[in-house]
Amino acid sequence: MSQQYGYFDDANKEYVLNTPKTPIKWANYVGTLDFGGLIDCTGGSLICKQDPALNRITKYIAQMPQSEFKGSTIYVRVKTKKGYQVFSPFFAPTLTPLDSFECRVGLSYSRWTVEAHGVRIQITVFVPQGSHTLAQDIQVTNISDDVLDVDVIPVYEFTHFDALKQLVNADWVPQTMTLKAHKQDSGHLVLEQYAFMKRDMAINYVSCDRPVDSFDGDRRVFLGDNEFGSWAHPLSLDNEHLSNSECDRGDNIAALMIKLGQLSPEQTERTVTQLGQADSVAAAQDEIQRYRQHANIDAAFEELSEFWQDYLTTMVVDTPDAAMNSMLNVHNPRQCHTTKNWSRYLSLYQLGYGARGIGFRDSSQDLLGVMSHMPQEAREFVERLLSVQNPNGSAMHQYFPLTMEANEGDSRDEEHLPDYYGDDHLWSVLAVCQYLKETGDLEFLNKSIPFYSKTLALEEREQGSVYEHMLRALEFTWNNIGQHQLPLLGFADWNDTVNLPTGAESLFVANLFGKAIIELSEVCRAIDDTANLEKIQSYHAIMKERVNQHAWDGQWWVRYFTDKGEPIGSSKNQYGSIYTNGQSWPVISGFADGERMLSGLQSVFDKLNTKYGIKLSGPGYNGFDPDLGGVSTYPPGAKENGGIFLHSNPWVMIAETIAGNGDRAFEYYNQINPASHNENLDIFESEPYCYPQNILGDEHKQFGMGRNAWLSGTSSWTYVAGTQHILGIQPSLQGLRIDPCIPKSWEGFKVTRMFRGAKYQIEVLNPKHVSKGVVSVSLNGELIDGNTLPISNSGEHNVVVTLG
Amino acid sequence: MSQQYGYFDDANKEYVLNTPKTPIKWANYVGTLDFGGLIDCTGGSLICKQDPALNRITKYIAQMPQSEFKGSTIYVRVKTKKGYQVFSPFFAPTLTPLDSFECRVGLSYSRWTVEAHGVRIQITVFVPQGSHTLAQDIQVTNISDDVLDVDVIPVYEFTHFDALKQLVNADWVPQTMTLKAHKQDSGHLVLEQYAFMKRDMAINYVSCDRPVDSFDGDRRVFLGDNEFGSWAHPLSLDNEHLSNSECDRGDNIAALMIKLGQLSPEQTERTVTQLGQADSVAAAQDEIQRYRQHANIDAAFEELSEFWQDYLTTMVVDTPDAAMNSMLNVHNPRQCHTTKNWSRYLSLYQLGYGARGIGFRDSSQDLLGVMSHMPQEAREFVERLLSVQNPNGSAMHQYFPLTMEANEGDSRDEEHLPDYYGDDHLWSVLAVCQYLKETGDLEFLNKSIPFYSKTLALEEREQGSVYEHMLRALEFTWNNIGQHQLPLLGFADWNDTVNLPTGAESLFVANLFGKAIIELSEVCRAIDDTANLEKIQSYHAIMKERVNQHAWDGQWWVRYFTDKGEPIGSSKNQYGSIYTNGQSWPVISGFADGERMLSGLQSVFDKLNTKYGIKLSGPGYNGFDPDLGGVSTYPPGAKENGGIFLHSNPWVMIAETIAGNGDRAFEYYNQINPASHNENLDIFESEPYCYPQNILGDEHKQFGMGRNAWLSGTSSWTYVAGTQHILGIQPSLQGLRIDPCIPKSWEGFKVTRMFRGAKYQIEVLNPKHVSKGVVSVSLNGELIDGNTLPISNSGEHNVVVTLG
Repeated sequence: MSQQYGYFDDANKEYVLNTPKTPIKWANYVGTLDFGGLIDCTGGSLICKQDPALNRITKYIAQMPQSEFKGSTIYVRVKTKKGYQVFSPFFAPTLTPLDSFECRVGLSYSRWTVEAHGVRIQITVFVPQGSHTLAQDIQVTNISDDVLDVDVIPVYEFTHFDALKQLVNADWVPQTMTLKAHKQDSGHLVLEQYAFMKRDMAINYVSCDRPVDSFDGDRRVFLGDNEFGSWAHPLSLDNEHLSNSECDRGDNIAALMIKLGQLSPEQTERTVTQLGQADSVAAAQDEIQRYRQHANIDAAFEELSEFWQDYLTTMVVDTPDAAMNSMLNVHNPRQCHTTKNWSRYLSLYQLGYGARGIGFRDSSQDLLGVMSHMPQEAREFVERLLSVQNPNGSAMHQYFPLTMEANEGDSRDEEHLPDYYGDDHLWSVLAVCQYLKETGDLEFLNKSIPFYSKTLALEEREQGSVYEHMLRALEFTWNNIGQHQLPLLGFADWNDTVNLPTGAESLFVANLFGKAIIELSEVCRAIDDTANLEKIQSYHAIMKERVNQHAWDGQWWVRYFTDKGEPIGSSKNQYGSIYTNGQSWPVISGFADGERMLSGLQSVFDKLNTKYGIKLSGPGYNGFDPDLGGVSTYPPGAKENGGIFLHSNPWVMIAETIAGNGDRAFEYYNQINPASHNENLDIFESEPYCYPQNILGDEHKQFGMGRNAWLSGTSSWTYVAGTQHILGIQPSLQGLRIDPCIPKSWEGFKVTRMFRGAKYQIEVLNPKHVSKGVVSVSLNGELIDGNTLPISNSGEHNVVVTLG
Repeated sequence: MSQQYGYFDDANKEYVLNTPKTPIKWANYVGTLDFGGLIDCTGGSLICKQDPALNRITKYIAQMPQSEFKGSTIYVRVKTKKGYQVFSPFFAPTLTPLDSFECRVGLSYSRWTVEAHGVRIQITVFVPQGSHTLAQDIQVTNISDDVLDVDVIPVYEFTHFDALKQLVNADWVPQTMTLKAHKQDSGHLVLEQYAFMKRDMAINYVSCDRPVDSFDGDRRVFLGDNEFGSWAHPLSLDNEHLSNSECDRGDNIAALMIKLGQLSPEQTERTVTQLGQADSVAAAQDEIQRYRQHANIDAAFEELSEFWQDYLTTMVVDTPDAAMNSMLNVHNPRQCHTTKNWSRYLSLYQLGYGARGIGFRDSSQDLLGVMSHMPQEAREFVERLLSVQNPNGSAMHQYFPLTMEANEGDSRDEEHLPDYYGDDHLWSVLAVCQYLKETGDLEFLNKSIPFYSKTLALEEREQGSVYEHMLRALEFTWNNIGQHQLPLLGFADWNDTVNLPTGAESLFVANLFGKAIIELSEVCRAIDDTANLEKIQSYHAIMKERVNQHAWDGQWWVRYFTDKGEPIGSSKNQYGSIYTNGQSWPVISGFADGERMLSGLQSVFDKLNTKYGIKLSGPGYNGFDPDLGGVSTYPPGAKENGGIFLHSNPWVMIAETIAGNGDRAFEYYNQINPASHNENLDIFESEPYCYPQNILGDEHKQFGMGRNAWLSGTSSWTYVAGTQHILGIQPSLQGLRIDPCIPKSWEGFKVTRMFRGAKYQIEVLNPKHVSKGVVSVSLNGELIDGNTLPISNSGEHNVVVTLG
């Protein structure tokens, strides 16, 4: 395997970079939304507490060139006869050549090992679980034959807590940014930072496990010469000591001069820094003291490893495809954990500056990818989501996690268009039902949760049970229909970028409505609510009739009708004549049968599939059309305009498994597996260890280039498609159902699955080389009826499933 | 005079920097709001067309260290045996030492002359008048004894036209940014740039007067090595040619490799680049061809010089104070021209990202500083301002110049506070009246102008005459009063940062109301509108009564009453016990008489004056208080919280002249003259050739540091205070009134003033060394009654005024 940029170390659950010069900046995540953020492969960090927009700590400007300082770095210097040799073990920002470079992208940690100028430096960055501390564990070893005098100078740059203000306000912000130094009796230093208005409420701090020689809190002093010193060469590093600058205004940094002293050959010195936030310096003391102890740092790192060990044990697969195993066992559930934390709110693409917040639609889907692993956290998240559902059943598009204020998303900016999204509310039905199927916790249906109001105080808002919330979601769609009696689009549906004049209808919403009814119907049956069951089943039948009457275009399904009744995604359209979601979702919703199902799916393969994935639609629109909206702001082949928008790919996989086509489902799965791009990175460019959101389509010159890694619904849906639909391990209200749809060539596969307190060792055998069809299931050696394992709640169970 | 950073070259109307390493980035402005923007002293540029928020062209991130690339630069390289010697004549971003550096900050141009590596480089940057082109005129002279092979590589970096989106959106923006190269038959190159949605509407372009060797449009290609090349060292400059990269996405730049060839000793080569915007490349051809001709560039530069020559001839002063002469004859009217163009909307502090727009209050005041020089442009501006006045007489706080959409400013973000500012609407009365006094164009009063509506189309909006607009402004304040029958504060008055709970009253608004009545009364008299005259005069008398009844604190005037009736700016307050505007404005409004007038002004001197200017209030509030609002988000001594907020200083000067105290008025004038800081720049830091908005007060460790240069009401009001109140040259409806109030030590002064088509050569004599009191005026040798020169409309007139 090519190792141009790095390789997968599956044993250690790491991706290992062997150069800092990745095509674009590759990221990792540490901590959780409660405290943490992203760190990049050259030591930059973007750290927040609870809200990237409203409580950001470090200043990271993603759009600057890779060579530049971004939020944090470490300088190391070795004293020589010619003066100090200064370099950064992260390569940026000094860009000094290194003898060797390795960065291990681990599960919620990154670890660098670098050699240069006679020293080996190992740096591990992580957030101890439950803490509000970013720990940086630095170990320096003298690998030369001489005694070396080594200094380590870690630096953080702070942002104003209001991340957007830091960027757009160069008047108020710098007048209020404050940094103070506290020398402790022990000789240790704590640097305290805040914007003046937060002084008495919340402060950031940086400290270190050993007394430091000197420090700088003022960027201008540290860089030197009226800031004509640079991050590549801070002039103060030419001096023996830093200047001990505090800041009553200006750009706040925390630069620590840590003198490790004279290191003999083979001697290692270790130092640990902390970046944290607390109510005050006094209130931070416990945490500061705790993580000054190396033993506590080691224990915290071990605890983090154990968390991930437990987390990933929820489901372990062993299939004939090594790349699938790698993704499903490590990288895909890890990415799902990340999207669950940060929604679309903090990445190198979705910069978290406040317009966005936590997405209702996004997080409802993200929860599907963590439901087996952390159902209680998922339930709490669902409760937050339902609390921003409107009394009429529709949902607010997004909310800010720190304040739980919600808003209507981009529809706010377009006053002539509707202010709701056609699909948002329906996704929460899928999340709730998946929670019920994973846990059996039907009591949750009775939990009372407020509906959202912009004007009423929380205690004054209307309440409704979780069940009521779901029923209202269906009713909203049922009651908001257009000229074909199909659901109205609203401002947009899942495809944010098609914003048609008011009155347009969305087939996507119609199909999502159908899928939500399928899901909720199972719940109605489980609680014997015949009245609602009959009602929503009739909705399903009627909507199926309407879709089949109006939306079949001859070879595939159309995607929208405009306010004038014209189809979009039709063979009549020169551009955008076929949409992927138009074909997959009628299958998922149960609206497409037989020939129409197969013809739609075949059209996707014929017209939209490429070697790098399925395009969202095609051909791309060639120029801005305000009546179409955002989609036409992209050049053909980019993003929603004929790009490979990966989120839609697993839906085709799922539809193909419903159609029984396991070979094609797996082909689609395999072709977008990012690990398969590891030898193709000069085209793909994006991290090979997580799904990007989009890949440029074949109408674009840069066909195959991935962007918007990490935070994408691709993660949860590909996990669902892989585990539940291809491997067919499906939680249900009655138990764990096994219904694979696999490549015919497979001999079988194995899965270990934790489910409702029991552990299942499942072996699937495929002696007749079919794709689908369970002919027998044995549970602990006994054949059972059907393919659903009864609920056991404890113990370990051996299951053998035979296809045929 | 110290020349640590530079000096004033008054003969050439320039400030001359002799080092690039100013304490902070110093700016200059080129062009107008129609096309232009700011350029900094190290070659960075922030260029816009018509709206900094919605049509920005270059990407300039002000908060980055001075050493970094910002929007544009030029690299020069000289071929040597050791390879290319690459340096930037602007010093940044290569930071290569230069043999000599000079930057002349001129009137709408900057000119650098730099020597390094055997060449002298002269670069002149300006916008030809009426063009949409930024011209960069580069001349390279071989000053060595050898033949030198010299390349010049100018670079611009483009921004998305929506400036804020460029910063906050790293997903959509880079997918749409496009750069294409057009090779012309002549061999010339035009680089075309746009965000995809603008392709068919408006494109930016860069071209050059000579065929170029090669180019790069993709930042990543130009910097090299996956952008681990840097702006300090673009790796592609190690190669003979650039890569001719276009861009279908990503970061768009325009880098031109201009090979000047072999230069003999003393040989000079000249090349001119253009950055522009047009509907299309074809539509740009005329302008491109025009400015490829050096003769046209020279003519355009000459035309610009003539514009400024004419502009400044409007008023020329010759006083005993050289620094005052320098400011009033060049730098202050020039700064007024800048604020008239960009309001508070495009500077290194007010970054123009769209929240702000053109300020109603700000621009109404800015117009006072250009009224004598460009009354027709001022009138057109007044019309735009009045078109965002509300039908109820209040005004929208700001508007976007490209769309004329208006909004309520920061009050939008605070839903519990009123959504109007108490003062905005009243300022327009001052602007209109000043226009009438300068021009006598009373017909303007009848001009019909719409009132603003957010919902009605322009043609559906209510119309009113200019006169009606002014009357409604007064009525709004008259009708919106609080518990002391004083005007309500609204969200804030002029002091944006004091945002009191609803119901608070503002003495500032009361006084501004008084001043507006004084101004409008003159107009009522001139048009014989007795009814309105009597009405507003009664308002003045009644408001004066109320102010005197409630707002006198014993030694000075209070500034606000809270909703609970408690005073702010009172001796009862521990912090903020006295406010400067509380004392100056009762004098300007005519509400303060005799002892109270003098006591209030003396209290300002005793309690708020410092050697760097008068503080806005004191003592500073020491911690955040949400009931006070923004003022308490600053540390004591900063900005509105006990800082020297310069805008308020000229109002004290004016009040002192009303009180007859010419010595103190001039002392106040002199102490904030930025030119006086030229020897104090390590403390002051800000440009010495224009007023900053604020200087840190004496409660702050960095007392004396100036910030927020260029765009401040300080400019227009200090110009008004200096010319109309200290020198006493006052346009009025009856003619030019002469009523100086000067230091007693002055023997006199001279002024040349253009007024209503006539030119007045005025000499003021002060034989008895008084401050104030005109005893005789002779006009062309004839004594006249009073001190108002009758309107002549033509010719040149000699005036001798004697004080006594």
